[in-house]
Amino acid sequence: MNKLLLMTPGPTFVPEKILRALSKPLVHHREEEFTVLLSNCYEGLKKVFETKNDVFILTGSGTSAMDAAVSNVVNKGDNVLCVVSGKFSSRLKEIVENYGGKPEVVDVEPGGIVNPEKVREKLDKKEFKAVTMVHNNTSTGSVNPVKEVGEIVKEHEALFIVDTVSSLGGDNVEVDKRHIDICFAGSQKCLALPPGLSFITVSEKAWEVIEKKKSKPYYLNLQNYKQKHPQTPFTIAINMIYALNESLNLVFEEGLSNRIKRHQICQEMVREAVKALNLNLFVEDKVASKTVTSVEIPPLTIPQEIEKLNISLKKKRDKALRETLKRYGVLVAKGQSWNVTKDKRVDLFGKIFRIGHMGFIYPRHVLKTISALELTLKELKHEFKEGEGITKAQEILEKNMKHINEI
Amino acid sequence: MNKLLLMTPGPTFVPEKILRALSKPLVHHREEEFTVLLSNCYEGLKKVFETKNDVFILTGSGTSAMDAAVSNVVNKGDNVLCVVSGKFSSRLKEIVENYGGKPEVVDVEPGGIVNPEKVREKLDKKEFKAVTMVHNNTSTGSVNPVKEVGEIVKEHEALFIVDTVSSLGGDNVEVDKRHIDICFAGSQKCLALPPGLSFITVSEKAWEVIEKKKSKPYYLNLQNYKQKHPQTPFTIAINMIYALNESLNLVFEEGLSNRIKRHQICQEMVREAVKALNLNLFVEDKVASKTVTSVEIPPLTIPQEIEKLNISLKKKRDKALRETLKRYGVLVAKGQSWNVTKDKRVDLFGKIFRIGHMGFIYPRHVLKTISALELTLKELKHEFKEGEGITKAQEILEKNMKHINEI
Repeated sequence: MNKLLLMTPGPTFVPEKILRALSKPLVHHREEEFTVLLSNCYEGLKKVFETKNDVFILTGSGTSAMDAAVSNVVNKGDNVLCVVSGKFSSRLKEIVENYGGKPEVVDVEPGGIVNPEKVREKLDKKEFKAVTMVHNNTSTGSVNPVKEVGEIVKEHEALFIVDTVSSLGGDNVEVDKRHIDICFAGSQKCLALPPGLSFITVSEKAWEVIEKKKSKPYYLNLQNYKQKHPQTPFTIAINMIYALNESLNLVFEEGLSNRIKRHQICQEMVREAVKALNLNLFVEDKVASKTVTSVEIPPLTIPQEIEKLNISLKKKRDKALRETLKRYGVLVAKGQSWNVTKDKRVDLFGKIFRIGHMGFIYPRHVLKTISALELTLKELKHEFKEGEGITKAQEILEKNMKHINEI
Repeated sequence: MNKLLLMTPGPTFVPEKILRALSKPLVHHREEEFTVLLSNCYEGLKKVFETKNDVFILTGSGTSAMDAAVSNVVNKGDNVLCVVSGKFSSRLKEIVENYGGKPEVVDVEPGGIVNPEKVREKLDKKEFKAVTMVHNNTSTGSVNPVKEVGEIVKEHEALFIVDTVSSLGGDNVEVDKRHIDICFAGSQKCLALPPGLSFITVSEKAWEVIEKKKSKPYYLNLQNYKQKHPQTPFTIAINMIYALNESLNLVFEEGLSNRIKRHQICQEMVREAVKALNLNLFVEDKVASKTVTSVEIPPLTIPQEIEKLNISLKKKRDKALRETLKRYGVLVAKGQSWNVTKDKRVDLFGKIFRIGHMGFIYPRHVLKTISALELTLKELKHEFKEGEGITKAQEILEKNMKHINEI
């Protein structure tokens, strides 16, 4: 049994009820009973995406939906405006290039967010097939102003393609209000399934573009999914649908807005505790993600057994911090690196660590995490006042008790 | 709980042990512990594929591997020789077309198998980038002579791409002996996992072609998988890997050859029982699949409530037979249809039904199926001698008791 608490920004802790749903004996995917279950899932997903657009479920990881979002739309030579604010928005740009599109980058300072006016400037100057961006930056913990950018893109020909992989179900996504043409997410983030499914929404404006496109992917051809809807063109991951159905039930039992509030409370607990522990947050409060928090790794006394290893200093720093935390029962994620343009690379490995607080992470998990963090920092001789982190987290919890069903 | 026995040719009955593995709490997929588990799975898969070639695991249904097999290899304008002997070999041809390849069809009579000399003739006349075929025809229940065709393809430039989706783990696949360059399978067939993973092997000869190819898929780019091996480029379906590991353990506990023998015994039980019930088998004994058996639907007395429906005769026939069987607790599959060429379509719907006997189907499941079939045929007024099917199946079982560990 896995006793390590996954405080990573996906995969995240999967509750017992969802694991049990996953292990139900299979019905055949072409049976009426299963079609009904699929239809329920589409309805639920529409509610969390906050959209009336078509929603499809792909058997594949989040990147399969990313691929579909681009390869169903972008022709060779198409200009695409790519807001690059982290690893996954960089991947979107890479996919555009892969399919022969010409990405033009709007560069965002790591940990910051895009200035919508920069997008407007670009769109006013040239014709773009699409604008790609990430809502919630899993690699930094900042949240892009999707609504503001959406208002701007709406006035242009370009499609608005938004990755909500690490926000769907943990923050408002508002596909319709924000004029998102293609929006996608993965299963192992705020919906807290295991990885293996992804979800994608398609607007009328997007369908017009997709229908005109000549070269198409096969497995990820969205028209094929539309045609077979509510059934699927290929055999879907049946047991993952059981788990998805259960996860959606749990979301609506709690209520989407209560759920988002809970994410926010956990976020605040983490952020205030981190500050109290004399650590630096990587992202400012006003643009901070509700689902993932990046923290700078402070100067540390690296343990002897790590110090003597023949690895780089940043590897030593990452290892010291995350392995000690792991010994105290909590897994957090390392800093990532990505290409912004050909000549510019961001590397946060060894500089930050990331705490995921998404899906079914409750205040009790945050308290355990802060406690583990205090013990870790003490062991690694970081200067801070013992107990201050936990005290601060408790304060936030106390203040928010009226919003909380379960601690 | 699902009490219906899945005697469909995938998804198939998933045993309790595999379902339990599926619902284990998650470790993070980038942790050492998980990399070790992945490596175990690759080793196991190599044994069932009978290959020393690289093996990769894709998060996606069987069609994702089909897509990868073609889209990593076939350029616009490439000639590809497509042996079309059923629905899935037709799909391979469709994928070739989708990516701009020029398929040339070797047409196989439904239920029959390809004549290897026809392949030789074509290959001797023109240059082909690849030859595609299906080993075990899920849609008909016939088995193509992969070894003989492999010997021929080997002497040419063409790559040999073989779909073993419904044979891997239930019949010998012998990737290396049969000179298969790209071979793939899905999880929900003879390995008896739920759907959601696929497996693909790549030979040195295939890598040379793949490395030279300019346009590439993104999510399904095999080079990317090779580069990250034994890890995966994108988040893999973690819990499905737990299940795969358990399934492979069960395969080797039984022994691959014992397992194949068991599939053959179940096949013989089904075939002999069907004959004894005065039904026609769709495929001759000597080319019959070990994992799926197609049976012609006999003239039936269609029940009143189905007769009065406003649907075609073939729909009525299919419904009468399969719904009655379902009432007796067994689900079998309908006949499928596919395009052979632009002008030729095969339609077996309402003409045959298909019994899957793959994965963890034991003689007890076959006996239950034959019993349900007898009761169904009696109800639908087919002429046969009651008990003859079961008696025949038992005879085969009795004769093979020495090969069987579990009834």
